[in-house]
Amino acid sequence: MQNIPPQVQSMLAQLESYQQQLQLLVQQKQKVQVELNEAKKALEEIEKLPDDAVIYKTVGTLIVKTEKAKAVEELKEKVETLEVRLNALERQEKKLNEKLKELTAKIQASLKPPVAG
Amino acid sequence: MQNIPPQVQSMLAQLESYQQQLQLLVQQKQKVQVELNEAKKALEEIEKLPDDAVIYKTVGTLIVKTEKAKAVEELKEKVETLEVRLNALERQEKKLNEKLKELTAKIQASLKPPVAG
Amino acid sequence: MQNIPPQVQSMLAQLESYQQQLQLLVQQKQKVQVELNEAKKALEEIEKLPDDAVIYKTVGTLIVKTEKAKAVEELKEKVETLEVRLNALERQEKKLNEKLKELTAKIQASLKPPVAG
Amino acid sequence: MQNIPPQVQSMLAQLESYQQQLQLLVQQKQKVQVELNEAKKALEEIEKLPDDAVIYKTVGTLIVKTEKAKAVEELKEKVETLEVRLNALERQEKKLNEKLKELTAKIQASLKPPVAG
Repeated sequence: MQNIPPQVQSMLAQLESYQQQLQLLVQQKQKVQVELNEAKKALEEIEKLPDDAVIYKTVGTLIVKTEKAKAVEELKEKVETLEVRLNALERQEKKLNEKLKELTAKIQASLKPPVAG
Repeated sequence: MQNIPPQVQSMLAQLESYQQQLQLLVQQKQKVQVELNEAKKALEEIEKLPDDAVIYKTVGTLIVKTEKAKAVEELKEKVETLEVRLNALERQEKKLNEKLKELTAKIQASLKPPVAG
Repeated sequence: MQNIPPQVQSMLAQLESYQQQLQLLVQQKQKVQVELNEAKKALEEIEKLPDDAVIYKTVGTLIVKTEKAKAVEELKEKVETLEVRLNALERQEKKLNEKLKELTAKIQASLKPPVAG
Repeated sequence: MQNIPPQVQSMLAQLESYQQQLQLLVQQKQKVQVELNEAKKALEEIEKLPDDAVIYKTVGTLIVKTEKAKAVEELKEKVETLEVRLNALERQEKKLNEKLKELTAKIQASLKPPVAG
């Protein structure tokens, strides 16, 4: 194996940086996905309750009375916010995967020995 | 110590992979075991309450009224689900331990110097 | 690169120690900032409630009834305590940053080759 | 620096093992100390409540009504259990510190060059 030329080394460093970014993105996506599933499940459960159900909500370490309509509204907002964030993360992931693919191809082409070599 | 032949190196890599899988399994098992103990303890405590006891349940960050019968039913389902998962993990652990044992024996046999050596 | 003289080595060790202290400070500051934001948000939400609102507070794993006035008072104290702590951490951070700057300048001066060298 | 004789190497390995045990003990002690402080603070706060105060307790993800007397009793038991555990950990820590001291002295004596050397 010959020494790796500087411009390829710099591409390999870029590749590693992309891979780290991708790993971080995937972790963030999983966290948002878990939160979204929990919010959706809670919404489903709250929506099944009668309209005059006794519902409390936690506010930090305090617990205050709320109403079904308000609780449903807040959960719907939460679900929406999390879906927007999840979509943004998925777009970033797709873009980054494309960059990774292109860079990997470029690196492989650079490392290919010349035909007449 | 002589160089390790390629086929033994590949078995050693497989061994390491099995050990990592086993470590992960043991961690998952402990987590499920803790959840199961908590669910069993909660079930025991709830079952002792009078049938008309005031019981609330948390739904995400919300708290809603429930009934003893429903709470007991949900806890029993949870205990059952966790027991099924624990059994599955224990079966996987047992299988993996057998594979590990076989592979270790195979590696030891490969590394034994030939009798006439 | 020549050997680094002992007094510069000791300054480099000091620099590293300062950088670790700074990193710790920044982490503590972020934690206090998050707690402060949560306390402020809770205060805002509790203040909007009617004076006779049903409010509970968590005491460890117990939940006890409280009143709006008391809850607001406790949250205000919490916000104040956290603000004092945040200010103290910010002062420490500023001081440490100045020390880091001075030491870096001193190290650079020590490593500069003599004019006639 | 000469090669370290095998029996000293084994003492150094033992020393490192003691230090790791000590670090673990200190972490456990801190955790129990934090839990104990929380339980004591909760007990103090619950004891101040009127005897007929509305108190709930969390049982896993469920919340059930309890009474002041019962809550106080459970908290007292918790405080007692944690104090017993803390004392046991402190005794272990003291013993380990003595062992560490003795072993360090033994290692230093072993490494001291002979008088006529």
